[in-house]
Amino acid sequence: MVVSKRDFLIRIGQVAGAGVLYSVMQGLGHFHVAQGATQTPVIPKGQSGNKSVLILGGGIAGLSAAYELMQAGYDCRLLEASDIVGGRCRTLRRGDAVFESGADAQICKFDKGLYMNAGPARIPSAHQAVLGYCRTFGIDLEVFINNNRSALFQDDRINDGHPVESRQVHHDTAGLISELLAKAIDGHLLDEELGDIHIDRLFAFLGRFGELDYYGTYAGGGRSGYESLPGAFEKRGRLRRPLELKDLLSSDFWRWKMYFEEEFFQQATMFQPVGGMDAIVRAFADRLGDRIETRAAVTEIHNTENGVQATFNADGSEGKVVNADFCICTLPLKVLAGVTTNLSAQHKEAVRSVAYMPVVKIGYQANRRFWEEDDAIYGGISYINHPITQIWYPCSGYHSGKGIMVGAYAFHGDAVRLSAMTPKKRYETAKTAGSKLHPQIGSEVGRPISVAWHNMPLAKGAWAVWRRDQRGNEYRTLSKPDRNMYFAGEHMSWLPGWQEGAVLSAHEVVSSIHERAQTSKG
Amino acid sequence: MVVSKRDFLIRIGQVAGAGVLYSVMQGLGHFHVAQGATQTPVIPKGQSGNKSVLILGGGIAGLSAAYELMQAGYDCRLLEASDIVGGRCRTLRRGDAVFESGADAQICKFDKGLYMNAGPARIPSAHQAVLGYCRTFGIDLEVFINNNRSALFQDDRINDGHPVESRQVHHDTAGLISELLAKAIDGHLLDEELGDIHIDRLFAFLGRFGELDYYGTYAGGGRSGYESLPGAFEKRGRLRRPLELKDLLSSDFWRWKMYFEEEFFQQATMFQPVGGMDAIVRAFADRLGDRIETRAAVTEIHNTENGVQATFNADGSEGKVVNADFCICTLPLKVLAGVTTNLSAQHKEAVRSVAYMPVVKIGYQANRRFWEEDDAIYGGISYINHPITQIWYPCSGYHSGKGIMVGAYAFHGDAVRLSAMTPKKRYETAKTAGSKLHPQIGSEVGRPISVAWHNMPLAKGAWAVWRRDQRGNEYRTLSKPDRNMYFAGEHMSWLPGWQEGAVLSAHEVVSSIHERAQTSKG
Repeated sequence: MVVSKRDFLIRIGQVAGAGVLYSVMQGLGHFHVAQGATQTPVIPKGQSGNKSVLILGGGIAGLSAAYELMQAGYDCRLLEASDIVGGRCRTLRRGDAVFESGADAQICKFDKGLYMNAGPARIPSAHQAVLGYCRTFGIDLEVFINNNRSALFQDDRINDGHPVESRQVHHDTAGLISELLAKAIDGHLLDEELGDIHIDRLFAFLGRFGELDYYGTYAGGGRSGYESLPGAFEKRGRLRRPLELKDLLSSDFWRWKMYFEEEFFQQATMFQPVGGMDAIVRAFADRLGDRIETRAAVTEIHNTENGVQATFNADGSEGKVVNADFCICTLPLKVLAGVTTNLSAQHKEAVRSVAYMPVVKIGYQANRRFWEEDDAIYGGISYINHPITQIWYPCSGYHSGKGIMVGAYAFHGDAVRLSAMTPKKRYETAKTAGSKLHPQIGSEVGRPISVAWHNMPLAKGAWAVWRRDQRGNEYRTLSKPDRNMYFAGEHMSWLPGWQEGAVLSAHEVVSSIHERAQTSKG
Repeated sequence: MVVSKRDFLIRIGQVAGAGVLYSVMQGLGHFHVAQGATQTPVIPKGQSGNKSVLILGGGIAGLSAAYELMQAGYDCRLLEASDIVGGRCRTLRRGDAVFESGADAQICKFDKGLYMNAGPARIPSAHQAVLGYCRTFGIDLEVFINNNRSALFQDDRINDGHPVESRQVHHDTAGLISELLAKAIDGHLLDEELGDIHIDRLFAFLGRFGELDYYGTYAGGGRSGYESLPGAFEKRGRLRRPLELKDLLSSDFWRWKMYFEEEFFQQATMFQPVGGMDAIVRAFADRLGDRIETRAAVTEIHNTENGVQATFNADGSEGKVVNADFCICTLPLKVLAGVTTNLSAQHKEAVRSVAYMPVVKIGYQANRRFWEEDDAIYGGISYINHPITQIWYPCSGYHSGKGIMVGAYAFHGDAVRLSAMTPKKRYETAKTAGSKLHPQIGSEVGRPISVAWHNMPLAKGAWAVWRRDQRGNEYRTLSKPDRNMYFAGEHMSWLPGWQEGAVLSAHEVVSSIHERAQTSKG
């Protein structure tokens, strides 16, 4: 029998525990975090003991919980208030409607075949639970681009307000700080700090790190890009002049925008499902079938002596009641706060305590891919010092005629400011600001749609924002079930806003319920 | 009439020249190099004046030259010595043969549908001439990944020889040098150098650049990755301990491997044609039809009084003769050196003077994508301090069963060393070395094939390597035609080894010939 290395490692872990497993992995040269897209069910099949589980909320947490329970043979039922499942995992296409509280309804008018992922839009390599489902369900993936060195940064305080290419922002910065450090080293200012580090080697290293010249000076380099590109025959190309460190420091590039693509969960390789993120939602929904009840808005949820009881309004009839042994509540906490419950005072207080991130995304359609045709920008993100914050270029259909740009993706106060505008005004604002990055936006885009997640009645925010002090208190409270009620969702993870956090929390809750069901079965 | 910005700029350039164009672009906020994938023919149609052009060599330079001449109505004929066109742009699939001088013939045994690009494998965003053809010909593109933060670096001198993730190499380096510079700044060692740069702002900036703590210390950070990943509930995740600067400096990572992905033409976004790079070759060949003659090896080429005359061996018959008004010779210079010519002594000397890069690529098939399944590595490149130099993971078919790995891509002396081995021995060497990155390589790969480009009789090297002093002499000599013979190919550009260099050189030569034909017509 051939045992794959993966199976071998899993067995060691099962038999001997994580400590031994880690030693073995070290022995095998696996200091790096090695793990593949799991296709193993979270709980084994056919050990459900006829227990019933009610799942509230049809987002990624609810769907993955229901799917795993169904696989194991549990009697499960999922109630979703909206007329579609997916929750914040929403892909907008022609005809889709967005209903924000306090804003006119918007209907998506994109051409057929075009879409915008209004919620989650990327899957990092490390999100192996989500990727595991993509693999199991056969969902085609394509690369999502965070890092495009041809994308632009704009801030009025640098380059006379003209956009700067990402490559120049990154590499002029690296060059200029290498030059400073090279000067300190060359002047023997850091000899004591360096200890047994060889100065010549460090100097040579800085030369490569920062493209410094023989004297340790940064005078621009190929990584930062060209004023005229190298070509054939006598066209040697001409390097750009570097930006000034002072100007780079004056810009807002370095506060977070430069490094966003290098945050752990934003690092390449990133993916998106071909055709829209909701391919994952559809795959779950197809398998769950009539276990899902949409347009079923829960108004009350109670722990009873032996289980839970929920009251909900289904299409046309109010006050329907459902009982189950357990409940997994995946409602966003701000939504749950509006439901009548008999949760403990501590749980109620925890639910009420959490802040949610205000987020606005604005999409519009371009009938010509001017960013590709005029500027050789293929996918990725440009940044601007304006409430719209960023512009996304589509990471599919390269060289095809039309495309959807994300014309704003704003957080915090910027999102609040944009969401206070009418959808029409948001669009005008996004066009005016975006024109600083691409003048073509002024005349070549249309068919806008926007979503302010904090104004969506079934979300009330984009993701939970736990303060550090809350993690040891309110977060911990909700990590434990209240009698027969369990909490899951991205808010119950260290991955705020990520589908992976929702899935992993669902898996943990499903495992806990199963363990309890097994114990109480006999 | 609506004039696109692109057309507007082109017209300004035509009417007022590049200087004015540049000023206008500045005014429009286009300090960055703005240019789209051109679909404009290099020379206008129907002005050919019945001139004939003979093209030697069916690589990308010859094909694009012939295509542009054909479009304009020239009588053109392309002679290619091999039985297929494409030159070094070669995609190996099941049944394809590789014939190196001095090595046994190899037949590709990959499963049907799998391939390896033995020559060029990536197209950067900036290569707008090649991308322009992809657009014109409707060739589907997918993202090629140079930068994958989950890919690995291995050198026996660091981390006890265990591989280190790219993310840790990059961000521990950034953290450790930021810490050093922060110390120098905090100790007021650089006050004079800093001039009017605000120290607090620079300190804050270094904190972001290097993920430093409040005291300016680097103690690891999320960008460098985790020992255990953040998850749900109580799984907060645990950061890795940083590498030591001393060890990083001892490794060979920083000499070029770390920065390779940031060299101008390697920066994201990069592309590959879906299904293999030779999609471009096929598109040209389909359009050129019987203007291409394969198995036609040129033995002599002469300038005559009014044109050129070539002698070649066609399938079965020797010494066939063809005459034309002009010749575009795209043969690699080391191959041209073996052809009898009446080139000027200076041209002959220039042809003989050029060195070519020795390159070896080794591919093999894995029947399970263990790099994805076990290690969550999707596409990209891992590096190793061994002659095999690097391992490439396929950038397509993610989560599909099988895949082709590039198990070695070596240059310079490393390539010479590998090519001196039999193909079988190369493979064994690649397996042994590759196992340091992925132990699975030892047992889970097979069906190898390798190409040593310097031993391929119709290439004699991967690309021309001009010494800096040659650019003003031999290179310049070949930039001018010798009477009716013109030279094109990647060797006649500042983009050595790139298809873009081949195409741009072809475009320049085609323009020169056209200009001359126009002048001499009357």
